Amino acid sequence: MRSSTGRVLVTSYPFGEIDREPVQLLETEKLPFTLNPFKRRLREEELSEIIEPYEGLIAGTDPITEAVLERATNLRMIARVGIGLDSVALRAAKARGIAVTYTPSAPSAAVAELTVGQILTLLRQTHTTNREMHEGLWRRRIGRRLGLMTVGVIGVGRIGRRVIQHIQGWSAQILAHDLHEDLDFFGTYGCTWTGAETIYRLADIITLHVPLTRRTRGMIGEQQLAIMKPDAILINTARGELIDEAALVRALRARPQFSAAIDVFEEEPYHGALAGAENCLLSSHMGSGTRDARLRMELEATQEVVRYFKDQPLACPVPESEYLTEGE
Amino acid sequence: MRSSTGRVLVTSYPFGEIDREPVQLLETEKLPFTLNPFKRRLREEELSEIIEPYEGLIAGTDPITEAVLERATNLRMIARVGIGLDSVALRAAKARGIAVTYTPSAPSAAVAELTVGQILTLLRQTHTTNREMHEGLWRRRIGRRLGLMTVGVIGVGRIGRRVIQHIQGWSAQILAHDLHEDLDFFGTYGCTWTGAETIYRLADIITLHVPLTRRTRGMIGEQQLAIMKPDAILINTARGELIDEAALVRALRARPQFSAAIDVFEEEPYHGALAGAENCLLSSHMGSGTRDARLRMELEATQEVVRYFKDQPLACPVPESEYLTEGE
Repeated sequence: MRSSTGRVLVTSYPFGEIDREPVQLLETEKLPFTLNPFKRRLREEELSEIIEPYEGLIAGTDPITEAVLERATNLRMIARVGIGLDSVALRAAKARGIAVTYTPSAPSAAVAELTVGQILTLLRQTHTTNREMHEGLWRRRIGRRLGLMTVGVIGVGRIGRRVIQHIQGWSAQILAHDLHEDLDFFGTYGCTWTGAETIYRLADIITLHVPLTRRTRGMIGEQQLAIMKPDAILINTARGELIDEAALVRALRARPQFSAAIDVFEEEPYHGALAGAENCLLSSHMGSGTRDARLRMELEATQEVVRYFKDQPLACPVPESEYLTEGE
Repeated sequence: MRSSTGRVLVTSYPFGEIDREPVQLLETEKLPFTLNPFKRRLREEELSEIIEPYEGLIAGTDPITEAVLERATNLRMIARVGIGLDSVALRAAKARGIAVTYTPSAPSAAVAELTVGQILTLLRQTHTTNREMHEGLWRRRIGRRLGLMTVGVIGVGRIGRRVIQHIQGWSAQILAHDLHEDLDFFGTYGCTWTGAETIYRLADIITLHVPLTRRTRGMIGEQQLAIMKPDAILINTARGELIDEAALVRALRARPQFSAAIDVFEEEPYHGALAGAENCLLSSHMGSGTRDARLRMELEATQEVVRYFKDQPLACPVPESEYLTEGE
């Protein structure tokens, strides 16, 4: 065994609530663990403060920066519950000999379903009608049909592909953009590959499914919002930092026909200005929030920790390519 | 020409608002018309009161009963904007030589899209999270995934089929029920044909797409609700009278995990007890409420009126079978 204790900090929250299985696994394997005392995503200084004694970290999207790692003198492995690696200083971890694993497939289906649901909600504005009817108001809204829309999918990885597959059952026109063109996929699913700017200009619905990197940070700003259709719908179930939030707030205020569904925020829990915009459908980083996805993510991450401390090969270490492109 | 004046009453509301084309057509054809003075569905006595001078009626779901027809001494044709014929006393109309047309295909796609959107909303409870976040609350809900659900579709006509087609892009298990089994369809779309009671017992999601007839009125009552799963989702975008509303209110109150999305009501505008149930997602008879569907429905109905008064053959008269089964 690499360690006799394997003290584990779990920052991912909630954890073991839907199903106790991951917690039971830690207990069975006699790995002492501490659950997130803040019951929310930790800030850098909070994580720095408490990380020192732990050898294993089951992490949500908490910032595991160089500063945090400097305090993590006992840390030997990080198991990310989820897919995004923007929160982890990968090369700094490697330099300290800290293994990093993730669960890239587990959340995809849940995120894709949330995305399609939010698109359909905004097309019909059913969230507003529901509120009005619960307040005793009867107002019939006329919406738009997904089948007649041009849907722009930016980022055609695990999640973007699933969104496209779901939309196959409609007959929407699909524009897609990614760094790497996959002609087989586009052929099978009848998408048109195009540049991001074409999507901003032409799409009725624009949905983001890219990782957060130096390249994608702030990719939707004033300029991109300005060229979108007046009644465009913008969906972000990926990472808050992809969009310049101040610019989005201004666009939502200035253009009542424009709308957005935002699930992810730079600062979470979110209490910012988007809450003042009726044409912004908000959710609380719920992309992966289905019972099956949560359980699978938590369990896969926990199993990695168990494997590590039993000196078994890891099932899903972060691939080399992620280290090479870190920060790009 | 069958008539030189062809005075037309339009009760369907809104009408010509999304697009003036239907109104312009009436103007171009010099058919004098009156738009719905109540700006909502008329009651029987209201329609009786005003119907007398009109030769043509472009109707929403207003009750065109025998009592109304008795007062409609000049009426020669009724063009229903929509698909349901439960509001029209078909045989009484025929006995008076009044032609009846409808637009059965126009609303299907819009109704099916609303249905899928409401299913996805209830699975994740995004309507509640959106309200909470606009109130400054951050609460992460864990939902369920459509791809893992058993979806029961009751009524596999124009709309039910489209719902099934949309859900193909997920990999949900689909149970379907209709009076007439269509093995080709079930084979193509991988549904299981079963009885309604099996659907009530086994489905996670139950969605109604049947016409309102004597047979279907109150088909979901105390007894049917009692055998549904504790966390079942019930969707009604068809007709309010299919469900015993008092029983539904009781079920929603007694079982917080149970939820419903209700778009249609016996009395519209609706101001009833469902508005007090947070686990009831409400919409305002918006199934056909998309720009394309409204325009197509209004235009197709108006074109029928024009054809009638020009003595041209009607494009979509109500078929004989509907007269034969009226009230069943």
